[in-house]
Amino acid sequence: MSRRLRLTVGYLGTRYAGWASQAPAKTGGLPTIQDTLEGALASVLGHPVRVTAAGRTDAGVHAAGQVVSFDTTASLPAAAVVRLLPRYLPADDIWPIASEECADVSFSARHSALRRWYRYLVWQGSTPPAEVRGRCEVIPDPLDVRAMRQASHQVLGRQDFASFAARPGRVVPSGYSTVRTIWVADWLQATDAPLLTFEVCADAFLRHMVRNLVGSLLWVGQGRWSPDDFATALAAKDRTAAGPAAPARGLTLWKIDYEM
Amino acid sequence: MSRRLRLTVGYLGTRYAGWASQAPAKTGGLPTIQDTLEGALASVLGHPVRVTAAGRTDAGVHAAGQVVSFDTTASLPAAAVVRLLPRYLPADDIWPIASEECADVSFSARHSALRRWYRYLVWQGSTPPAEVRGRCEVIPDPLDVRAMRQASHQVLGRQDFASFAARPGRVVPSGYSTVRTIWVADWLQATDAPLLTFEVCADAFLRHMVRNLVGSLLWVGQGRWSPDDFATALAAKDRTAAGPAAPARGLTLWKIDYEM
Repeated sequence: MSRRLRLTVGYLGTRYAGWASQAPAKTGGLPTIQDTLEGALASVLGHPVRVTAAGRTDAGVHAAGQVVSFDTTASLPAAAVVRLLPRYLPADDIWPIASEECADVSFSARHSALRRWYRYLVWQGSTPPAEVRGRCEVIPDPLDVRAMRQASHQVLGRQDFASFAARPGRVVPSGYSTVRTIWVADWLQATDAPLLTFEVCADAFLRHMVRNLVGSLLWVGQGRWSPDDFATALAAKDRTAAGPAAPARGLTLWKIDYEM
Repeated sequence: MSRRLRLTVGYLGTRYAGWASQAPAKTGGLPTIQDTLEGALASVLGHPVRVTAAGRTDAGVHAAGQVVSFDTTASLPAAAVVRLLPRYLPADDIWPIASEECADVSFSARHSALRRWYRYLVWQGSTPPAEVRGRCEVIPDPLDVRAMRQASHQVLGRQDFASFAARPGRVVPSGYSTVRTIWVADWLQATDAPLLTFEVCADAFLRHMVRNLVGSLLWVGQGRWSPDDFATALAAKDRTAAGPAAPARGLTLWKIDYEM
């Protein structure tokens, strides 16, 4: 009898070639999160496992609440998967958080997801403290947070995000829709604290979209662009109109919303 | 040494006079969720407890993820609170979900909340199944979900929700701001399934705001109002311009978002 399980995992993406399984030749020898997790699950469950993930994070991107679904013929209780997995995982890099039985066997971590949440951390100053080191972008000079907030509000709603799709210079494949709905986009900051958090939630994101948005929003924060310049770039629906992608190290896949 | 704890609880509000502690004379003898929970916490911790809640739900409203914070001098581990509480609670009505130590002693379930999520369930048909009975509003005839979605999109963003504040006929106290930010407002439905879920997320809600919004959106779904009529009611900034409040039984405080 095959059952479907749902597993929430966190990881530090620093030493990985991103989420998606790839031939080692293409990753410069770096492991992928998916391959590492699938290997550990196979050890726990006693058979090969293929997982479906809510978000395919890029090389160097972290996760606090990535969700995967997979089928197993093992009779192990769902909770035991979380208890046993750490034995087979590099514990400082990848850690299980929760595991549940899927009452609905058609559940897919990817297709059943209602919304994805990402956070991008920016440390304003010289050396970030240990808690966020390696998980944030460091900007020496203070940013104009007010201008960044103003620009961020312009991405809300259902819009064409072609300007923030893919790497600069890359062409979005024709026939591929670049329309997405951003529900939340906000900069969180305790009063004058050096840590700034960009929080963004959408039905789904285009590849590199969050990093591309943050790269251009940092231009606004640095005074290189006004919020209006940002709006113009968004309206252009052309990747060359926007700024560079912010580095992967500041980005964390925060959580995934499902109906249940 | 006093510590601060954070506790997530669920409840079925049917047999309660709402969240907030009140004199029994004012509740017709019905208990409140807050009084019942504080009594159980006092039994577990050995001293009187006063909790601060993220959302003060009305009489008859349920919760899947209400969050409270409170101080205790007891040395009990946070996890033990969740384990012991059910002994002192009416288990079918109120149940603890999670409890954690607050690293930041200034944490407040109310003031630290970034966003509140509510869900309103509507069953289209005659008798709802056991899973949702008592937690949904029942509408015999099918609703125009497309029109309801269209109207719902108009509430997004930072706006004055005076039209959906308080009970009909009640006056909003002067000097009280009725401006709130709604981040998400959407109707979830599996294809042609009879269960419809209104999901709404805001920085904070006015009293009765979700039920007032749903009451008017149901008018749209029933063809009594067009989406434009709904927009007109919203723009009026006057409670008398909007429809009735939907019944409390369909409403659930779904979850609270915090920075950590």
